[in-house]
Amino acid sequence: MSHKSSPGLVSLVGAGPGDPDLLTRKAVRRLGEADLVVYDALVDPEALTLAPAARRVFVGKRAGRPAVRQAFINDLLVRAARRGQRVVRLKGGDPFVFGRGGEEALALTAAGVPVEVIPGISSAISAAALAGIPVTHRGLATGFVVVSGHAAGAYRPILEGLAPNCATVVVLMGLAHSEAIAALLTRCGWKPETPVAVLLSASTPRAVAYRSTLAGLAAGGVDLGDHDGAGTVVIGDVVRLRSVLATDAHGWTPTGVGHEDDRRQAVNGAAGA
Amino acid sequence: MSHKSSPGLVSLVGAGPGDPDLLTRKAVRRLGEADLVVYDALVDPEALTLAPAARRVFVGKRAGRPAVRQAFINDLLVRAARRGQRVVRLKGGDPFVFGRGGEEALALTAAGVPVEVIPGISSAISAAALAGIPVTHRGLATGFVVVSGHAAGAYRPILEGLAPNCATVVVLMGLAHSEAIAALLTRCGWKPETPVAVLLSASTPRAVAYRSTLAGLAAGGVDLGDHDGAGTVVIGDVVRLRSVLATDAHGWTPTGVGHEDDRRQAVNGAAGA
Repeated sequence: MSHKSSPGLVSLVGAGPGDPDLLTRKAVRRLGEADLVVYDALVDPEALTLAPAARRVFVGKRAGRPAVRQAFINDLLVRAARRGQRVVRLKGGDPFVFGRGGEEALALTAAGVPVEVIPGISSAISAAALAGIPVTHRGLATGFVVVSGHAAGAYRPILEGLAPNCATVVVLMGLAHSEAIAALLTRCGWKPETPVAVLLSASTPRAVAYRSTLAGLAAGGVDLGDHDGAGTVVIGDVVRLRSVLATDAHGWTPTGVGHEDDRRQAVNGAAGA
Repeated sequence: MSHKSSPGLVSLVGAGPGDPDLLTRKAVRRLGEADLVVYDALVDPEALTLAPAARRVFVGKRAGRPAVRQAFINDLLVRAARRGQRVVRLKGGDPFVFGRGGEEALALTAAGVPVEVIPGISSAISAAALAGIPVTHRGLATGFVVVSGHAAGAYRPILEGLAPNCATVVVLMGLAHSEAIAALLTRCGWKPETPVAVLLSASTPRAVAYRSTLAGLAAGGVDLGDHDGAGTVVIGDVVRLRSVLATDAHGWTPTGVGHEDDRRQAVNGAAGA
């Protein structure tokens, strides 16, 4: 299917949180037509089976290896599209939420390559939803704040101005900094008993949810064991709804979210949290 | 297909921003199996054709008529599920983002009815993305804030604490209050020249994008003409990327986003904005 005479196209496609059932119809169609799929670490292998005719190139981080350079990825996409190929750049979640999708779109546009974006289900909202936590809820949260937790410079300017307990806070890629983030919010006047959910591998069979409070998280962080999947931290009163909404008896199990929080001592130093 | 002996199920399903191609595979499957679909005003008619066997009940707001009461909707869902029906509660965007999904899930759970949530593509992220605006972008925004703009009490506590220009602000349901929101942010120290996009009917053939600045928006609001669709306001430096990323020549047109902002005098009192 390569070497077409028509101009190629790069589709920046959101793969959603993991479950291939949460791909959009448009994403599925683009995968089915693709000559090349360039994918990241958080993409489910089953999603790749939807692109049977495509060459598949993994460009995510793998333990013990250096990350693939962005310039290499851009070059791969540009060269394929110039050969007339249909390219799917498949990214976990949504391509424009901390996915460098904007950077790749700029590089492709600068190279004169046609590009489109196909939104995906972002963990920023769905990780909580699949655990029985609405990020907004009348009387509890009229808005939400999404930050990248990978570095203090990324989340501090946004979080430290927020009026305490005024909104739901969602931290993506923030497992390593969750202790510091909880301490920051507590220092800023957030209630120490504000409930917190730590959600790992949302929407997959490996999904686990841990419960704590800001005080608990600030005191000890989260013991992730050997978990190396994606993590989302949700902070705010909406987290309380999980105990009502996310019981096996009420049909939440098809989403694959675990209910370990009632059984595990998940958070260090947070006895009884 | 009604009167099954098995217990019913209510699926709270996100329909995405409008384009039926942005439904998830799981949403499509649930629609195909549905006995009853209860849907809102922002759901595309084509999505309903995916539920050929279902009774369809519209519960959205229609011009000149009072809104259907939430208690009526809850009762409708509960009664159908108790008769063993497969019910899809189809909501625009994501069911847990300002969709009262949490309230309906609580009511169903209280009634002992099995319920599940199927996330949808939220306009909070996708309206901007489909207009060529990434809500996060390295060097421009390390996070984003999503508020409901339907009432000052909903957005003011969140917005007025934010450090000026620290994040992308996305306002849903905020067209009527966009002038007041721009004035609030300007008063709080945001740069008057901060770019603003007003996006209407994102992902549909009627999509239109207007460009302004905080100063322009604060001075006159947006003249929507006779448009009565959904609107999203995006505020922040990432809006500048649209002029690079969203040109017809670069393949963004398949998303259905208009490019009227370069041709129309969209914002009152914002000459040259």
